[in-house]
Amino acid sequence: MPRLILVRHGQSQWNLENRFTGWWDVDLTEKGEAEARAAGRLLAEKGMLPDMAFTSFQTRAIRTLHLALHAAGRLWIPETKDWRLNERHYGGLTGLDKAQTAAKHGDEQVHVWRRSFDTPPPDLDPGSEFDLSGDPRYAGITVPRTESLKDTIARVLPYYESSIVPHLKAGACVVVSAHGNSLRALVKHLSGISDEEITGLEIPTGQPIIYELDTDLAASERYYLSER
Amino acid sequence: MPRLILVRHGQSQWNLENRFTGWWDVDLTEKGEAEARAAGRLLAEKGMLPDMAFTSFQTRAIRTLHLALHAAGRLWIPETKDWRLNERHYGGLTGLDKAQTAAKHGDEQVHVWRRSFDTPPPDLDPGSEFDLSGDPRYAGITVPRTESLKDTIARVLPYYESSIVPHLKAGACVVVSAHGNSLRALVKHLSGISDEEITGLEIPTGQPIIYELDTDLAASERYYLSER
Repeated sequence: MPRLILVRHGQSQWNLENRFTGWWDVDLTEKGEAEARAAGRLLAEKGMLPDMAFTSFQTRAIRTLHLALHAAGRLWIPETKDWRLNERHYGGLTGLDKAQTAAKHGDEQVHVWRRSFDTPPPDLDPGSEFDLSGDPRYAGITVPRTESLKDTIARVLPYYESSIVPHLKAGACVVVSAHGNSLRALVKHLSGISDEEITGLEIPTGQPIIYELDTDLAASERYYLSER
Repeated sequence: MPRLILVRHGQSQWNLENRFTGWWDVDLTEKGEAEARAAGRLLAEKGMLPDMAFTSFQTRAIRTLHLALHAAGRLWIPETKDWRLNERHYGGLTGLDKAQTAAKHGDEQVHVWRRSFDTPPPDLDPGSEFDLSGDPRYAGITVPRTESLKDTIARVLPYYESSIVPHLKAGACVVVSAHGNSLRALVKHLSGISDEEITGLEIPTGQPIIYELDTDLAASERYYLSER
């Protein structure tokens, strides 16, 4: 039966510094690297060995995948990267310290930006030091200026349907190494979570979420691997 | 214009122990990891940034690629793995200490096995601890029992033609992270080296070999990156 394994990247430098990150390409900390390796060891211990892997265009998710697969002895499986699995674009908040932003705009406004389903943060200024529209990795892609969670879901799910679902339907065990919000999109879809509830659902870092699926890809079971 | 970058994996544990390795999946040593990172830094310094990557099914080449791309800031490029870029299969010599093998079979015989173009070493015994025919990564593939360099070339070149050449013809900069003998196959082809000479050509570890190609993929120039 098909199985989907979701892994949120381990701690990044800006997770540690409490800054809004979004599409900015921040690397893992040593703790984040250790989380990724632990996730891979756990998959191997439980015999949950992926046949193929998907990840974003962002270093922290790619390295989490590589470190986990290396620890699981599965570095040789095929791997596909796509920008549609990237983190939600945090617009003009990118790079800002979360506490400073709350001090400046008020806790309530920051809560709306972080936890509203369809209200995006302000646009990133063109020419900002965090503007990635000229980054060669996004050549041919219109880099968003900002995104709500709804916007993120609107790019993640079509990619899931077109590129991941065919492998699941063929019975594969697929691992997706991605980000808090791109994984929320998948969890919302697979677990049927409402717009209101999904914004508050925390995806833990480096802790594999397992979906056991039936042949129609309905989720027969979801669990965190370490809990079992 | 198209550019092809060849990187031989950094030092592996069995390079260090002076054992025949072939298809056995030995990991990099710390020195090998450092060599891989240095190769990536060198590519970045020289502005030779690959658009796509190819590697084998073997951990030491995959990790060399990942460490080099990470150091070069290019971890996000597409990556394809294929068993046809694997090292030459060393047959019954796999796992043996090179000095002990020479003591047992004589220097001359070992020289023939290592340096003959078309004489393979003896077959690997089925059921040997080094028999990979049941390894899931090779499901659907007939794992060789042994290979000469000629046999290795006979699987590397068709793969190069079918899977790498189309990207070069489109003008891409392609990096191939592989092994001494799978890279000999490419160097022999691109530089027009004879059967006799190619067996003695040493490909250095972790030192990028650059082929500047014309639109017909004839090599207009070949150089080691650090020499320039």
